[in-house]
Amino acid sequence: MFLHNYWYVGAYAAEIGEKPLARTILGEPVLLYRTTDGHAIAMEDRCCHRNLPLSMGIREGDAIRCGYHGLKFDSAGQCIEIPGQAQIPPDAKVKTYPAMERWNLIWLWMGDAAKRDESLLPQWQCIDDPALTTTMGNGCEPLPMKCNWELNNDNLLDLTHVVFVHPSTLGGVGLDNNPVTTLRLANSVRMMRWSASVEPTPLLAKLAGFNGTVSDRWQATTCELPSHCTIDVGFAEACKIGRDGDWDKGVRLRALITATPETETTSFMFYAQCRNFALGDQEASQRFIKQIRAVFDQDIAVMEGQQRINSMMPNAPTVEIRCDVPVVAMHRLVMQAAAREHGEPITATRVQPGAPRPPLPVPARAGQPIEIGPVSR
Amino acid sequence: MFLHNYWYVGAYAAEIGEKPLARTILGEPVLLYRTTDGHAIAMEDRCCHRNLPLSMGIREGDAIRCGYHGLKFDSAGQCIEIPGQAQIPPDAKVKTYPAMERWNLIWLWMGDAAKRDESLLPQWQCIDDPALTTTMGNGCEPLPMKCNWELNNDNLLDLTHVVFVHPSTLGGVGLDNNPVTTLRLANSVRMMRWSASVEPTPLLAKLAGFNGTVSDRWQATTCELPSHCTIDVGFAEACKIGRDGDWDKGVRLRALITATPETETTSFMFYAQCRNFALGDQEASQRFIKQIRAVFDQDIAVMEGQQRINSMMPNAPTVEIRCDVPVVAMHRLVMQAAAREHGEPITATRVQPGAPRPPLPVPARAGQPIEIGPVSR
Amino acid sequence: MFLHNYWYVGAYAAEIGEKPLARTILGEPVLLYRTTDGHAIAMEDRCCHRNLPLSMGIREGDAIRCGYHGLKFDSAGQCIEIPGQAQIPPDAKVKTYPAMERWNLIWLWMGDAAKRDESLLPQWQCIDDPALTTTMGNGCEPLPMKCNWELNNDNLLDLTHVVFVHPSTLGGVGLDNNPVTTLRLANSVRMMRWSASVEPTPLLAKLAGFNGTVSDRWQATTCELPSHCTIDVGFAEACKIGRDGDWDKGVRLRALITATPETETTSFMFYAQCRNFALGDQEASQRFIKQIRAVFDQDIAVMEGQQRINSMMPNAPTVEIRCDVPVVAMHRLVMQAAAREHGEPITATRVQPGAPRPPLPVPARAGQPIEIGPVSR
Repeated sequence: MFLHNYWYVGAYAAEIGEKPLARTILGEPVLLYRTTDGHAIAMEDRCCHRNLPLSMGIREGDAIRCGYHGLKFDSAGQCIEIPGQAQIPPDAKVKTYPAMERWNLIWLWMGDAAKRDESLLPQWQCIDDPALTTTMGNGCEPLPMKCNWELNNDNLLDLTHVVFVHPSTLGGVGLDNNPVTTLRLANSVRMMRWSASVEPTPLLAKLAGFNGTVSDRWQATTCELPSHCTIDVGFAEACKIGRDGDWDKGVRLRALITATPETETTSFMFYAQCRNFALGDQEASQRFIKQIRAVFDQDIAVMEGQQRINSMMPNAPTVEIRCDVPVVAMHRLVMQAAAREHGEPITATRVQPGAPRPPLPVPARAGQPIEIGPVSR
Repeated sequence: MFLHNYWYVGAYAAEIGEKPLARTILGEPVLLYRTTDGHAIAMEDRCCHRNLPLSMGIREGDAIRCGYHGLKFDSAGQCIEIPGQAQIPPDAKVKTYPAMERWNLIWLWMGDAAKRDESLLPQWQCIDDPALTTTMGNGCEPLPMKCNWELNNDNLLDLTHVVFVHPSTLGGVGLDNNPVTTLRLANSVRMMRWSASVEPTPLLAKLAGFNGTVSDRWQATTCELPSHCTIDVGFAEACKIGRDGDWDKGVRLRALITATPETETTSFMFYAQCRNFALGDQEASQRFIKQIRAVFDQDIAVMEGQQRINSMMPNAPTVEIRCDVPVVAMHRLVMQAAAREHGEPITATRVQPGAPRPPLPVPARAGQPIEIGPVSR
Repeated sequence: MFLHNYWYVGAYAAEIGEKPLARTILGEPVLLYRTTDGHAIAMEDRCCHRNLPLSMGIREGDAIRCGYHGLKFDSAGQCIEIPGQAQIPPDAKVKTYPAMERWNLIWLWMGDAAKRDESLLPQWQCIDDPALTTTMGNGCEPLPMKCNWELNNDNLLDLTHVVFVHPSTLGGVGLDNNPVTTLRLANSVRMMRWSASVEPTPLLAKLAGFNGTVSDRWQATTCELPSHCTIDVGFAEACKIGRDGDWDKGVRLRALITATPETETTSFMFYAQCRNFALGDQEASQRFIKQIRAVFDQDIAVMEGQQRINSMMPNAPTVEIRCDVPVVAMHRLVMQAAAREHGEPITATRVQPGAPRPPLPVPARAGQPIEIGPVSR
């Protein structure tokens, strides 16, 4: 199940240029390139004549010429030349996708172009914040994941997994005893856990040169439809700033992560990290990129393990637990969005009968937060 | 099509220990390990929370902790800890399978635990017989077969294949001229062929140090539901013991072979051999293991060839011949068992219209043998 | 979709001999071998007893003995021996396919043997013409293609692709400005383009030692049902022979190419080239084989690219253009043949709604050409 009327990351900005880049997104073949003046173009990677991928053709100025019979398409997808024929049939055109470069990423609107809505971009302005140092992904291309895209939302909205999946890098003993607050908005879900007097995150403490052993620590995830997650993690000297204070006074990292669906069971992970420490330190950035990659490889192993079982046993019963509140809230947002797009019923098969679920509140309106949590034992 | 209310070999006893072993059995992910006091545990390899394979988790005493959010399950499959939550939902448990160690093998009951019935274990006591020397499989793990499990029953109930599939190892020219007797019992089929004055089995003769060129020779297969085959083969000096005499006075080998279904088109072959010659001879055992493996590799090549055709042409017509009597009798037992479990009709598609079939006798009762053969030309 | 009541190339004549060759054709497992007196035999590669591929058995004279239980089949597919059984059931036989060796190729009739019709062989007599030098394929085996067989017809009936797919080898700038004539016959479609005063084909000019830069040039494709294409290409000094003259006075190459379906999405390409230059020149033949292979590898890359899209987006809309006239005419022939065989409607899904199509003339009768073209801008 895909949601179409949303923005997806199609590529890192650095990935596309003159040479066409072919990538399957939401099950559709997409061609990405830049015009000579630098604009990102996303086009159906399929000649409308005989279905050859246009990525097997050649650039001619800002147009693409098919590598089979030479039909030439401008960057709006309109056929502008058919060798051996003067007249162009009116339906000789290929689909294009609204594309936009922002925050070093190429964003694609995969649904109805008339419904394109920039206000649905996630709140990822921190990538451009000059007060922070940002690293983009692993420096080259997205990480392929052999799993459905929603498993990434699930993963990031329930950070109790950190203790079990990333004990050596992100640590977190004792975090799971602290209550989680869940906010449900019209297009996003936000969970937050504040843990007083716990050990700092090993990976961050080392990079930030923090030598203390006790800190206040926070983990917050905002997941914006369909799959854009902002993980805000950090720590500060104990009792220094407090849950509602200015987190930028501590060691703070925002990890921006999104899963772009390739097929129902494969996805691409794009990510960036914005930090307020080790500013401009290239060597720290390189170490950071390497360590974050190791963390994500652990997550991907878990999600691919889940996918194997989900594919093998699609109707296996599951139980919900308390830390699932943000996960289930996000499932509901996705299901409601799917219902709007496809007329799919809200009760997706994945929400198991008999599982404890949060009560569904009155329909949320944009900007109107509904406090569901805190949830604690 | 799988039969569930039967015992299957899930592993060699030597395969399982502290570290969880993951294996797909009857299309279900299964986790196998031993408790600290040595009991075999077979558990659904799937956390009931988010479907991560539990084999990706860790042992804690006799319990398994999931590697995602840390749910902990005792060896009965009951969730006994949920990090961050005091209360355990009543349905937070995973399936376990009755498991039993016997004859150096781990036996799993894959169906309704309430119907567990030890009397359905095959008659494989010879593995523990101190008067015999036993070799278990190839010494480590089952042989993977890219074919349906029933093809193994077919293979072993019609030993006329020996002449054509194993000419250099098991030989058998002339055997096919001797009549086959078929016994049909409530849960098993037994075929027997006694061949007077033929050459001895090359492989056995060599290992047993028999120098004669003429012998009386027998081949008998008992196939017990669902897939447990006992092949009793051997030879004796001509006219020494006779068809109804004590076969242990000859050179005798019981080969115990079972196919455990992994999926509809893949299986695991587990096997053991019990011999009454070269007793305790380690070097002979090693040679024997190697040679038997070569024989089974020939069988597996045949069964995988059949599976390729069965998958490509599921409705191709086939003919039955006289040596199929035990094979067809076993098909019927399997179909009747399936009908009891699933309500499937007895006329499976594999039994082709127009093919000669043995008459279906009055329903067999346990322990009441029905002599169908002998069948000869 | 396959057409059965037609001839297909099953193998190069040089491929088959005493040892059985297994090949899947039209989704059926086929066994190919020669009798001791040299006749080609094509037989179902499946024992009718237990579905073992007969290619895993052994030759005994002109018969094949199954490698499982030893059933022996003569070269007509009749079972002539069942070990251990005197009587042969009447349905103990396997399918054979009418097979014929002609033009260094083995031709199989894949449908109803009673409808076998030699007049449906393609007009490939040039392979045997002593006035020409012929090279058979790449010298050994067919080229595997991961695409549906009809894409090869499409490729060869629209040679405007030469400019875009083979610019360095076959060239052709300017050819696409010349009109195409399309002839539609009962069982074939023929397209022809005559281009006056253009550059000669680079590959042919070099091999033929032609140093001129201007020539008259022709490209003609005859595609005979189901998939047999004759490409007649060449050039002559400008104004020397003319469109309706004797093309053998120029540098002429007939490339015979057929795609034999393996499955719906994979095929085998068999081919031969007959040339009227560099006669008997072995070194030229070797260079030619190498260069033609490079050309076909380019074609196969295109067709496999199409297949990926066709599989991913089976209902994507396409447009027809003017150079598709012969392609669409051939589609219609195939669809009509399918309708005769299978009762399939003539409007195959591949012909897109809203696409410009040539008018369907009154039904063609054998031998009665219908001039559809010329088509020009």
